[in-house]
Amino acid sequence: MTTWTVYLSGEIHTDWREQIQAGARAMDLPVRFTSAVTDHDASDAAGDVLGEESSGFWRDHKSAKVNAIRTQTLIQDADLVVVRFGDKYKQWNAAFDAGFCAALGKPYITLHAEEIIHPLKEVDASAMAWAQTPEQIVEILRYVITKK
Amino acid sequence: MTTWTVYLSGEIHTDWREQIQAGARAMDLPVRFTSAVTDHDASDAAGDVLGEESSGFWRDHKSAKVNAIRTQTLIQDADLVVVRFGDKYKQWNAAFDAGFCAALGKPYITLHAEEIIHPLKEVDASAMAWAQTPEQIVEILRYVITKK
Amino acid sequence: MTTWTVYLSGEIHTDWREQIQAGARAMDLPVRFTSAVTDHDASDAAGDVLGEESSGFWRDHKSAKVNAIRTQTLIQDADLVVVRFGDKYKQWNAAFDAGFCAALGKPYITLHAEEIIHPLKEVDASAMAWAQTPEQIVEILRYVITKK
Amino acid sequence: MTTWTVYLSGEIHTDWREQIQAGARAMDLPVRFTSAVTDHDASDAAGDVLGEESSGFWRDHKSAKVNAIRTQTLIQDADLVVVRFGDKYKQWNAAFDAGFCAALGKPYITLHAEEIIHPLKEVDASAMAWAQTPEQIVEILRYVITKK
Amino acid sequence: MTTWTVYLSGEIHTDWREQIQAGARAMDLPVRFTSAVTDHDASDAAGDVLGEESSGFWRDHKSAKVNAIRTQTLIQDADLVVVRFGDKYKQWNAAFDAGFCAALGKPYITLHAEEIIHPLKEVDASAMAWAQTPEQIVEILRYVITKK
Amino acid sequence: MTTWTVYLSGEIHTDWREQIQAGARAMDLPVRFTSAVTDHDASDAAGDVLGEESSGFWRDHKSAKVNAIRTQTLIQDADLVVVRFGDKYKQWNAAFDAGFCAALGKPYITLHAEEIIHPLKEVDASAMAWAQTPEQIVEILRYVITKK
Amino acid sequence: MTTWTVYLSGEIHTDWREQIQAGARAMDLPVRFTSAVTDHDASDAAGDVLGEESSGFWRDHKSAKVNAIRTQTLIQDADLVVVRFGDKYKQWNAAFDAGFCAALGKPYITLHAEEIIHPLKEVDASAMAWAQTPEQIVEILRYVITKK
Amino acid sequence: MTTWTVYLSGEIHTDWREQIQAGARAMDLPVRFTSAVTDHDASDAAGDVLGEESSGFWRDHKSAKVNAIRTQTLIQDADLVVVRFGDKYKQWNAAFDAGFCAALGKPYITLHAEEIIHPLKEVDASAMAWAQTPEQIVEILRYVITKK
Repeated sequence: MTTWTVYLSGEIHTDWREQIQAGARAMDLPVRFTSAVTDHDASDAAGDVLGEESSGFWRDHKSAKVNAIRTQTLIQDADLVVVRFGDKYKQWNAAFDAGFCAALGKPYITLHAEEIIHPLKEVDASAMAWAQTPEQIVEILRYVITKK
Repeated sequence: MTTWTVYLSGEIHTDWREQIQAGARAMDLPVRFTSAVTDHDASDAAGDVLGEESSGFWRDHKSAKVNAIRTQTLIQDADLVVVRFGDKYKQWNAAFDAGFCAALGKPYITLHAEEIIHPLKEVDASAMAWAQTPEQIVEILRYVITKK
Repeated sequence: MTTWTVYLSGEIHTDWREQIQAGARAMDLPVRFTSAVTDHDASDAAGDVLGEESSGFWRDHKSAKVNAIRTQTLIQDADLVVVRFGDKYKQWNAAFDAGFCAALGKPYITLHAEEIIHPLKEVDASAMAWAQTPEQIVEILRYVITKK
Repeated sequence: MTTWTVYLSGEIHTDWREQIQAGARAMDLPVRFTSAVTDHDASDAAGDVLGEESSGFWRDHKSAKVNAIRTQTLIQDADLVVVRFGDKYKQWNAAFDAGFCAALGKPYITLHAEEIIHPLKEVDASAMAWAQTPEQIVEILRYVITKK
Repeated sequence: MTTWTVYLSGEIHTDWREQIQAGARAMDLPVRFTSAVTDHDASDAAGDVLGEESSGFWRDHKSAKVNAIRTQTLIQDADLVVVRFGDKYKQWNAAFDAGFCAALGKPYITLHAEEIIHPLKEVDASAMAWAQTPEQIVEILRYVITKK
Repeated sequence: MTTWTVYLSGEIHTDWREQIQAGARAMDLPVRFTSAVTDHDASDAAGDVLGEESSGFWRDHKSAKVNAIRTQTLIQDADLVVVRFGDKYKQWNAAFDAGFCAALGKPYITLHAEEIIHPLKEVDASAMAWAQTPEQIVEILRYVITKK
Repeated sequence: MTTWTVYLSGEIHTDWREQIQAGARAMDLPVRFTSAVTDHDASDAAGDVLGEESSGFWRDHKSAKVNAIRTQTLIQDADLVVVRFGDKYKQWNAAFDAGFCAALGKPYITLHAEEIIHPLKEVDASAMAWAQTPEQIVEILRYVITKK
Repeated sequence: MTTWTVYLSGEIHTDWREQIQAGARAMDLPVRFTSAVTDHDASDAAGDVLGEESSGFWRDHKSAKVNAIRTQTLIQDADLVVVRFGDKYKQWNAAFDAGFCAALGKPYITLHAEEIIHPLKEVDASAMAWAQTPEQIVEILRYVITKK
């Protein structure tokens, strides 16, 4: 492959995606980035077009499945996945994506602070690397994709 | 199959596993239950026999991988997985197991309270059912395995 | 394998399953038969234990998924599938099972009357055989499993 | 992927395919649509070039297999499948395609009226969404493929 | 595995199967042998129970598919396949079985005389061994299965 | 896919490949054809560059494996395979390719005269079509690839 | 699974296999051990029964393939593989087995001294654990298989 | 495929990669070559950007995993792999890559001197060819990719 496809999974409340993309652009790396929809409200409402639901469970269910059309397809299409865990929220979808990758044999890198090493040990155990900053991710991409 | 193998994943701080097993036994269901090691300290120390580590990350890493020998083998060997989320802790390993099942096409049922529907929507979206009590799980097992 | 597992899919309004099972028993064939739950009302209510639904769609959805835990597991565990189409009802689940088998490379035989050859042509095209009576199915089983 | 491939399966008697394609074109979505041959007579005669058959079963059989070269290849090549059920005919081929997708882990959306929810419950249970109008399908495509 | 399953494919006009089975029995090897139906007339008539055909092609087609229910299932269930080519007939089914094994990564041994090395070179190229006598096959089985 | 890849397997002594290619060109079909090396002497000598062999078996073995690098890669890359059987030679490699396709779920069409229906019944049983002339193959390609 | 199958790969010049087996027996672990043939001369001569070879390469080739019938089958049948590297010889077959396991997603543990960490880093990178003594292996087995 | 992708695995101390690439260029072969990072020091330091390690094992482990993101992705993306063994060092990573290819069914050619035939017999047994010089590799590429 001459261009790598890298899927960015997880936290949507900080600009880590932009930092990685800007870093890759600055180095002119041949990478195409994909991602889930990161607009929180739009994501929660993804299934609303199919009809209103009175139950919160089913509204969430419909939206989550519409989102999964995108996320599971793009993850399977990616060469590498980066899974980001922030310091807030449950972020079970990020751990779910990591498990999905692990079962497919799809390589992924985790991106998280040192404070949450222990609860993430199973997720890190199947990862190819653990990074703490977007800059480290960009460096890994540069090395993996362009180093002779 | 005359006996079903059901893997019980997730929370280790309440007795939900025992309740399900007792319920299945009471109904004389042909089910064999498997699980991760649920002794928290033993699980954290699973890799210690291989040598001490000065870094917390690597101690966790070694133990998580030793545990994964068991968990990933047993999950792949199971006919059905139940994934339990409690009201405490990050429980990223439970979400990881769910994602692992989803990618394998292995059916799983989630078991959690109504309060955490929203953060679990991606995990529930790929599940075959969402239950709120161990009794419901036992009823599902009885129906799925023994109903004519 | 010394015992074959044969999954019986489709129509639940006539006694074709019993005829095949009785025929196999009469010939003492080493066959274990499996099937979806054939009690129509119980099948429709399979998910009710998980909570009532006000919407017909979601009640059906929950029940269909609980049933799929059983049907998809048993189909994957089977050596051979028989798919029966009667002369009433839509029976889309039977055609769905046939497509499921085709994608898995799991051999299946269709069992239906001559009148519906044309609408079933895609389903028959991936089948290993088309039979019109339960007796023919039993004969095929006898030949395939016991003939030297 | 920069362009998504969407396979349109099922009913050939109304213009739902054209509506979806026109809607996608109007929004300039990067989608390539594929489909079975939708000319009914041509499809029934697909195998005639290989020689005449006196038996209706074998004529159908040959044609269905020639069509399957196309349909099974295009379904496997698609990123997403839409399966349409109308209010007439048996449409077992549509349910067959849905089952085929389910076994492959290929995401599909069903498109059908509320009246046939119940007989389609097994088909809907493995779908990523249920839509009632072509406009809803186009909205889902727009969201899944282009939303940031 | 404590017992190996060995599928014997190909020529049905000499007693090579019996020789291998007798040899394995004499050495008390833990092997279970499986095979296609080797009664030529019964095999050609395997589909007749499903109705008479006026065309030779379709009679053969039906019978070959009924036989394939058995052969493809047993080959996939085997640990090892022996493919025998004699000095008569086309024996394309034997070469077909070899190709089937090769694509599955299922190990197979060919059994044939030196005279037909050249036309069998593609078949031998994917085989794990080429033997010329049933005795050699038995020796290989003894070594592979019982040697410490 | 906008261009189909069609692998032409089997007989190398008549010009059936050229006829199909010319026919496809005349209709301007979007097809790319691939094939084994059809120069008989070159094919037999494919491994000679790796060193001479005194044994005919090992010379054939080396050449057949070098050829398999090409044939198995191109078959797996093809959307459709045509397998041609002529009236001479053993042609076990053609039957081997058919079996290889069958196990992969790769669609193939056989091309052979009526005289050899019976010995090819197992090969035809897993094929999507049986054609007798290159013209029929071209017609099938035209229909499958371009028909609306 | 109630009994685990553990394949012991690699070095055949020390008694590490016996130590692991004795340790497991002493703890009454439900483990069945499998292995390549560890009799060096017998292994080198595995193919001799198929005829003498004048070339060393082909003698080795034939024997290695006969051995592969056993090793690749038993590795695929194992739940866990232990790969041992000693301080002598090339031991490329052990590294080959490790790569084979990695591609299959089959968990393996390496067993080697600290001195060869660096040249084994790629092999260790895909392993679930690195042990230095047979006792550690036995402890891991005990934990993984029997710990509640 | 119109361009073949060939992954060059193994020894990094001689210029065999350059010889193959120059030879392919001279013949204008449509080949794209990929490889692990061949700068020894850079490869050993691949993980250093993620933080320093006091233990040699973990430094190696991190670097080896970062390298594996590249190597396992490129090997799976390749049409053919060449695995080179020189006369120095352990080169277990090369044997590991060969085993990885074997399990995937990915064709590979070994490149090594006659002196190490015996210890490489298991690696050669699953290879499609054994070459002794880069020129032979180029010849094989020319034949496989361009010969009519």
